[in-house]
Amino acid sequence: MPNLRLALSQIDPWVGDIARNSDEVVRWTKQAVEAGAQLVAFPEMALTGYPVEDLALRRSFVEASRAALVELAGRLADDGLGGVPVVVGYLGRSEHASPRFGRPAGSPQNCAAVLYGGEVATRFAKHHLPNYGVFDEYRWFVPGDQLPVLRVGGVDVALAICEDIWQDGGRVSAAREAGAGLLLVVNGSPYERNKDDQRLELVRRRAAEAGCTLAYVNMVGGQDELVFDGDSIVVDADGEVLARSPQFEEHLLVLDLDLPEASSDHTDGLLLSDGLHLVRTELGDEPRPAPAERLTAEVAPRLSDEAEIWAALVAGTRAYVQKNGMRSVLVGLSGGIDSALVASIAVDAIGAENVYCVSMPSRYSSQHSRDDAAELARRTGLHFRTVSIAPMFDAYLAATELTGLAEENLQSRLRGTLLMAISNQEGHLVLAPGNKSELAVGYSTLYGDSVGAYGPIKDVYKSLIFRLARWRNEEAERRGEVPPIPENTISKPPSAELRPDQVDTDSLPDYDLLDSVLDRYIEGDEGRDAIVAAGFDPAVVDRVVRLVDTAEYKRRQYPPGPKVSAKNFGRDRRLPITNRWRRG
Amino acid sequence: MPNLRLALSQIDPWVGDIARNSDEVVRWTKQAVEAGAQLVAFPEMALTGYPVEDLALRRSFVEASRAALVELAGRLADDGLGGVPVVVGYLGRSEHASPRFGRPAGSPQNCAAVLYGGEVATRFAKHHLPNYGVFDEYRWFVPGDQLPVLRVGGVDVALAICEDIWQDGGRVSAAREAGAGLLLVVNGSPYERNKDDQRLELVRRRAAEAGCTLAYVNMVGGQDELVFDGDSIVVDADGEVLARSPQFEEHLLVLDLDLPEASSDHTDGLLLSDGLHLVRTELGDEPRPAPAERLTAEVAPRLSDEAEIWAALVAGTRAYVQKNGMRSVLVGLSGGIDSALVASIAVDAIGAENVYCVSMPSRYSSQHSRDDAAELARRTGLHFRTVSIAPMFDAYLAATELTGLAEENLQSRLRGTLLMAISNQEGHLVLAPGNKSELAVGYSTLYGDSVGAYGPIKDVYKSLIFRLARWRNEEAERRGEVPPIPENTISKPPSAELRPDQVDTDSLPDYDLLDSVLDRYIEGDEGRDAIVAAGFDPAVVDRVVRLVDTAEYKRRQYPPGPKVSAKNFGRDRRLPITNRWRRG
Repeated sequence: MPNLRLALSQIDPWVGDIARNSDEVVRWTKQAVEAGAQLVAFPEMALTGYPVEDLALRRSFVEASRAALVELAGRLADDGLGGVPVVVGYLGRSEHASPRFGRPAGSPQNCAAVLYGGEVATRFAKHHLPNYGVFDEYRWFVPGDQLPVLRVGGVDVALAICEDIWQDGGRVSAAREAGAGLLLVVNGSPYERNKDDQRLELVRRRAAEAGCTLAYVNMVGGQDELVFDGDSIVVDADGEVLARSPQFEEHLLVLDLDLPEASSDHTDGLLLSDGLHLVRTELGDEPRPAPAERLTAEVAPRLSDEAEIWAALVAGTRAYVQKNGMRSVLVGLSGGIDSALVASIAVDAIGAENVYCVSMPSRYSSQHSRDDAAELARRTGLHFRTVSIAPMFDAYLAATELTGLAEENLQSRLRGTLLMAISNQEGHLVLAPGNKSELAVGYSTLYGDSVGAYGPIKDVYKSLIFRLARWRNEEAERRGEVPPIPENTISKPPSAELRPDQVDTDSLPDYDLLDSVLDRYIEGDEGRDAIVAAGFDPAVVDRVVRLVDTAEYKRRQYPPGPKVSAKNFGRDRRLPITNRWRRG
Repeated sequence: MPNLRLALSQIDPWVGDIARNSDEVVRWTKQAVEAGAQLVAFPEMALTGYPVEDLALRRSFVEASRAALVELAGRLADDGLGGVPVVVGYLGRSEHASPRFGRPAGSPQNCAAVLYGGEVATRFAKHHLPNYGVFDEYRWFVPGDQLPVLRVGGVDVALAICEDIWQDGGRVSAAREAGAGLLLVVNGSPYERNKDDQRLELVRRRAAEAGCTLAYVNMVGGQDELVFDGDSIVVDADGEVLARSPQFEEHLLVLDLDLPEASSDHTDGLLLSDGLHLVRTELGDEPRPAPAERLTAEVAPRLSDEAEIWAALVAGTRAYVQKNGMRSVLVGLSGGIDSALVASIAVDAIGAENVYCVSMPSRYSSQHSRDDAAELARRTGLHFRTVSIAPMFDAYLAATELTGLAEENLQSRLRGTLLMAISNQEGHLVLAPGNKSELAVGYSTLYGDSVGAYGPIKDVYKSLIFRLARWRNEEAERRGEVPPIPENTISKPPSAELRPDQVDTDSLPDYDLLDSVLDRYIEGDEGRDAIVAAGFDPAVVDRVVRLVDTAEYKRRQYPPGPKVSAKNFGRDRRLPITNRWRRG
């Protein structure tokens, strides 16, 4: 049984920065080769970053990606790395027309290639295209119809891309038919809460179906609303986990695999499952016996639920700031839990020295709010100042008659305007403090607390925010550090403080109840009747459903933020703004 | 040769309001039957409105649509309309799994049905699904694989839905193979500038390919960013236009068609082009000879380029206000051409009595700006007031150090905040005045002049705005009315008036030049090199391309507006916010 030393490069490609991504592929391949790897794999579309969205439709971008791929093959060889096959995802184009989709030859494809000996040894395109949730791949790509099998070190390695294993049949069945000894899958699989469990279950099932070991390499980092958690995995056909990379960190996973020697004599063009055709690439190298010093496969421990979510929020925020070319952020600090959590995430993401906060009290702000904001600043060491919005408020009230909600919203908008003024003057990226419960029901002010370029907790329900705040403080204690969030911020009743003695429960159900209904309506896609049947008060359900259905416009105008849940309010939920459908 | 009296109901369905849409189908069918129609057709998804976007993924909405269809068949019969087949688009679901797309049985489909005799005589789903530009139909639907042929009055009528004729093959080829005497296509085809010409060319070509007369019924109205222009057409196999409905108006087109008597004996299940299976429905009625009094087919004249665009902007604005349940709008009137045009569009859309405007001068506002704003109000009769933003501006400057761009943006944001305050207090929907040239290059202030729920001219280049303003004034003169827009508003150099003596050309190229480059880069998808090769100054091209590529975030945060061009900045152009790709 030959040994294959495999390297999975769990990296963070930057969308659109092909030059940077090429450099990274060379750098990581060098490390992998130094570690003795015989086969190196990078994530889906590592060369262009993922997802490129409508950049895929710019012909010049497709050509830049294709040219960079060829150049990269040459660079690897020039750097003495040409003797090891490297699997790299890139943006390519189809050779043939796809009449079923009305698309001509030359249409963009989500591709991967094997680079070897200074050349592109083989190329192929994703077969199953995801077109749900955050994915729009039938918009950008046409599917591929090949099963590439690479014979390396005497082992037949079948190759696949991400969705190819999330749908039944296709390359998984074809890999078995082709007698593959390893199924290697390159991925750009975004984070969702508990997705690591789902992913492990999936790769186990697909390994069994393919009848061979399965290696899964994923990316890390963040791109707009998407966060990538890595979690690269190798399992054998019996479902045993042979190795697993840590979550949310760049990581090179190198391990020795004992794999069956290739014996298949199937030839090119053989028709397999789902209309796939076999395409063989033989590198001509010899099988290698198990090395004297076998690499111990590492299985990184999983993070706890809270730690995982926190890591996603921090990773998403850091990526967004960095990739937008910014260095510092600005947060309006009210003394409440939402802005405290956002500031703490920012401190963990880019360091307290890059986090600027401003307290903006009005005549309705309580003393404890001001104190709590200052206390958070003291504990974390972030930059802090106070600017009262009272004079601006008075100037508006003198100019025009404003009462009730108009007066409440005005205060929020004056704060938004102040944040943007400071941002424009000093060059910070503004973070918006809204949470998912508020956004769901429209309990926020357009151009007020919704101001910002990124919303770190926009996909986190309020009840989870309390849990995360407590967890972060406990985590600090475990590390022997000062807990960042003042206890009073966590324990006091939530209030917008836009009128005297206001609390959130004046306008909304208790957050635990609200979040339970929201979770069923949004994540569960349950209709009003089903939620009532589950035992919830019909009046509450009707009210919540009506609020959610009418807040679509506000949600559309909200900044992007890291996706945590199965259904957030960014890319993956697209309702018409003007619709009369209620209580569905 | 039998005669068939056909009625095409060019109506305005409301997304999500199934009850209202059902009522409309009954009302219009009654008119059609009174006019002697033997076959009545409504647009694509007329029962649910179009596009329903992610509402398609709510099972309860699909079931509501399916139930309403059955109920509608009964209602039509109860109202004495059961003897005439009625073709109605609705949201349905598939009977079989679609493994190629990884979708189970019961997945949503974009369907149409023939209602007859109190029952659903036949149902079918769209075969070609559009998944480009504003369309995401592989996200929502699975394709259908039938060619329905309805034998009515002795004529074989093949049925198709919208995209079915925009792609080659499919139901057009199948209709010929089935020997159809008429190809009836129900549509939800959004407006784009000059699309009527494109559509006419298309239906002529498809009629020739199908070898029979083609009848095309489209919807009118607006849904968020989409405007539907109607333009229903009937052409014969030689491409002669037999009838054409007006643009942008609800309209019942009734005409007598001499069509070949059905002679085909093809049976159900016959495999036709593109994997389609024939499904026959025979109503059992007899062929009818040409009536003594033949209906004269009308061919409505086309609008001029400016009139067509104006009608689209007015229709989109009216629909958005009405369908959001609002009655009045609020516009900040600067005296400049953009806000003047927006106010004029609003006056045409919902009447001057429902248009509220406010002039918000700062210390940098010129006297002519104030005068021009007041003059527009005087000419149109809209509601007008003036509120100075000077005191608010001073309050901010006293509280924090602001210079340059921060000071300029502040003024714009103070106006946005004032508009929202008045909107909250009085209940108007705020219209944003931004144009496509500004949005393209990011020459606008987030939370400032971008404030609003709808942007009537967001897809109109500045050079076209001047043309539209002149056209609207000339049109008023032709009608013997007062031209709404003051001549000085059109003739003075554009300025944001955010600092002394500022004009737009301080920051941007001349608008004619800018728009030429933008048109190539955005509509034409030309790369930087191609635009330079066409003779444009490389420095200007580099600057414009850089500005466009970095303004994505601002554009995403902009309100929706009526789509006019092939590529606008709403639904149909989706770039990653954080991308490093430049000059592609």
